[in-house]
Parts: sequence; C-alpha cells; structure tokens
Amino acid sequence: MRGDIIKALVFDVFGTIVDWRSSLIAELSAFGAARGLAADWPALVDAWRGAYAPSLDRVRRGARAWAPLDVLHRETLDRLVQEFGIAGLDEAALRHINRGWHRLRPWPDAVGGLGRLKRRFVIAPLSNGNLALLTAMAKQAGLPWDAIFGADLFRHYKPDPETYLGACALLDLPPQEVMMVAAHNADLAAARALGLATAFFPRPGEYGPGQVRDLTAEAAWDVVAQDVEDLAARLGA
Amino acid sequence: MRGDIIKALVFDVFGTIVDWRSSLIAELSAFGAARGLAADWPALVDAWRGAYAPSLDRVRRGARAWAPLDVLHRETLDRLVQEFGIAGLDEAALRHINRGWHRLRPWPDAVGGLGRLKRRFVIAPLSNGNLALLTAMAKQAGLPWDAIFGADLFRHYKPDPETYLGACALLDLPPQEVMMVAAHNADLAAARALGLATAFFPRPGEYGPGQVRDLTAEAAWDVVAQDVEDLAARLGA
Repeated sequence: MRGDIIKALVFDVFGTIVDWRSSLIAELSAFGAARGLAADWPALVDAWRGAYAPSLDRVRRGARAWAPLDVLHRETLDRLVQEFGIAGLDEAALRHINRGWHRLRPWPDAVGGLGRLKRRFVIAPLSNGNLALLTAMAKQAGLPWDAIFGADLFRHYKPDPETYLGACALLDLPPQEVMMVAAHNADLAAARALGLATAFFPRPGEYGPGQVRDLTAEAAWDVVAQDVEDLAARLGA
Repeated sequence: MRGDIIKALVFDVFGTIVDWRSSLIAELSAFGAARGLAADWPALVDAWRGAYAPSLDRVRRGARAWAPLDVLHRETLDRLVQEFGIAGLDEAALRHINRGWHRLRPWPDAVGGLGRLKRRFVIAPLSNGNLALLTAMAKQAGLPWDAIFGADLFRHYKPDPETYLGACALLDLPPQEVMMVAAHNADLAAARALGLATAFFPRPGEYGPGQVRDLTAEAAWDVVAQDVEDLAARLGA
C-alpha cells in the first residue's frame, strides 16, 4: 500500500465504527422495560435501518428537498411507532429515542485504533449522519476525530460525489492522499471511482445473525484489514 | 450568566486562542537565520496580518470570488516578499512560510481551558481560517476541538451572518444556546446581533507592544473573563 502518500483517513461510521444495531436494541429494550412497553425491538430497529437507504435515495434523486439524517430518522420512527402499535410516547420520548443514534456504541477496536491512526494521520468521519449527530456521538463514545464531515456540510448523501470530493477539498488534499475506510464495499467503490484510496474491514455482526452482505472485500481495495486496530498496524501507525 | 442554557461554545482563533504574532516572528526569524536571510521580520508579520481584513473584505463585498484563507495569505506573502526585498525563496520555501499559520502556538491558558470546557460543552473554532488550516493547527497545538468550523464550510467570512448562523445550524442549536468566544469586540457584536451568547477576554499582547484595540470589553458581554481557564471557571466547567 502507498502508506506514505496518505495524509488523511475518512471513515464511514454506522456499522464501520459504531454498532448501531446492538446499541439501539439495548437502548430500546431498556427504555421499554422502564416504561412497561412491550414490542419486538429488534424488528423495529431492523425496520428503522431498513428505511435508511430508501429515505436517503429520495433526497439523492431530488424527490424531496435536503433534510439531515436526524430528520429522516425521526420521520421513519414516527411511522414505525404507529406500525408497531407502540402507544403513549410523547414528544420528549420520541426525541429521546431518535437521539439514540447519537449514543451508538463503538466496536471494541474503534477507539484504540483511531487513537493510533490519529497520531500519524488526520482522521475524520465521512458519514451520512449530520454534524450534530456525529459530534454528540464522538463525545459520548470517545471517538478522537480531528474534524467532523457530516452530510449536511455538503447537503448530499453518499455515494454522491459531492461528499467524497467535498471532504478532500476541505482537507485541501488531492483524493489520492485521502483514504476512505468502510465496512461496506459500495462506499469504497464510489470513493475509488473518484480517486480516493480505500480500506476495508468486515463487520460480520453489523446486521445481526444471518448477515449476508459485506462479509468480504469484493474488490482489491488498497488495504483489507480485520478491524481499526489492524488497519493502524498495516498503515504503520 | 445563563450558563445552563449554553450547549456549545464557538471560538475565534487568531488572537483569541493562538498567538499569531509571536509565533510567526519566531518562525520567520529562525527560518531567516538558517537561510542567511536578513529582514525586518516583525514588520513583515505586521504587514501580513495588516492585509488580512482588507483581503477578507474584498471577498465579503463580492469584489472577488470565494478563496480560502490559505490562498489569501499566500497572495499577500508573495507581494510582501517583493516589497521587503527578500530574494531566493523557491516554491517550497514560500509554501512552508505560508503554512506557518498552521503552526501557530496557543496562548498558555488555551489548551487547559479548552480541555475543561470540552467536558461540559461542545467546543469548536469558528474562524476565518479554512478547515485544513484549523485542523492542522489543532493537531500541532493540541487543541481538543469537538468539531471544526472553518470559513470554507460557509464560503463566507466573519462577520457575515452566514458564518455564525451556519455554525448554529450545523450544531442543530438555536443561537441562544451557542456562545461566541472572542478577544475581539466586533466579532462578539456581530454574534450578539444574531442572538448568540457572548464571552470576551482580552489579549493585550496580540498585536505586540503599543496595542490599542480590544483591551477591554466594549459592551456588556454575557461573560467577561481573564482568559480561557477563567472562562471555564465562570461557566462552571
């Protein structure tokens, strides 16, 4: 790998750095128990995440105006609460649940690996989350980012080119000196097409038992690692 | 002060957090000594900073297209090198000198005070510097920002409203919950006019001996402190 060329690493976050599924299921289960609410929380979380790509795609296609991920999450949540027949949630409760995305827990290797990488590289999220979400998450989880690239900086969602190239422009670096890190092959394919370097590691537990996607590198990415700690080791950090 | 209302603090950087004048004079003096170049380095630094406001104002008035501060700094440097009769600087040397703005040293209270404030608030620069400059500076100086707001995110320079309101929007906070911190009264006046809370402390050494501006608070800012550590104490952080 052209390790000495790379100046900055930008990271996908949901799934790559934080374990959204287990975090949200744990949050909602505890919330439901405290309130005496019963529901199939794993199914609700899977449905919530299942609406993610379609809701982003509507913005990407121009079928709706720009809206940050916090707003899209909330719209989906309001619908799912109806569909799952969960009653008695007031505005404060719905807001609290929606902010669960701000409190996602990092995978065990993430904080340590990022700390190593930060000593040698500029590190930042490049996520479809909005800046406020990503900043709150970083404080809560201890993610030591140097800067925060949320989709609201660009008013575009990945894989729109404006996101990858927008981050490179703000970093004042050519794409060749920026490495996209993701547990998702499609994200890396979009980044590579624009000239960014790429690093992959799998998160086979991201979607829960029976996950079938992104279990392996589907192209010859510049680095294929086990996790963030291993990526740091492979990049000499 | 409405300390419990505040969720985020955004900071002016040049002069408020870092000591640009002493840092650049020290850098250029050492650089000149190593190269056998003699010049009135303090005068060059003062002229460089003196061109700052006029060059930003040309962008703000629309007299020229958007350009990030690194570019404006370089244009001024190229002119001053001629005016000061400094010969023999190649592109690498000019680039290194221009990047001196990325290596400015913090005032002695800045890193410790920001660390205290970070435990209770979201903290970020809101500077006319570009994101790459501010990110590099933070890594070099150990400034523990949660996020980086450079003028290039908004393609506007302070005191344009797009900068202050743009930061509030990205933070997903109403202006009343965001405090602008600056050693410059004019910056705070612009922020207050838009509804932000305000905090001032003086940096009487910023412009060197004989400084006459911004020696005291010129309005009843929400907090008037001695420095960043004192601000943290006054905000209960």
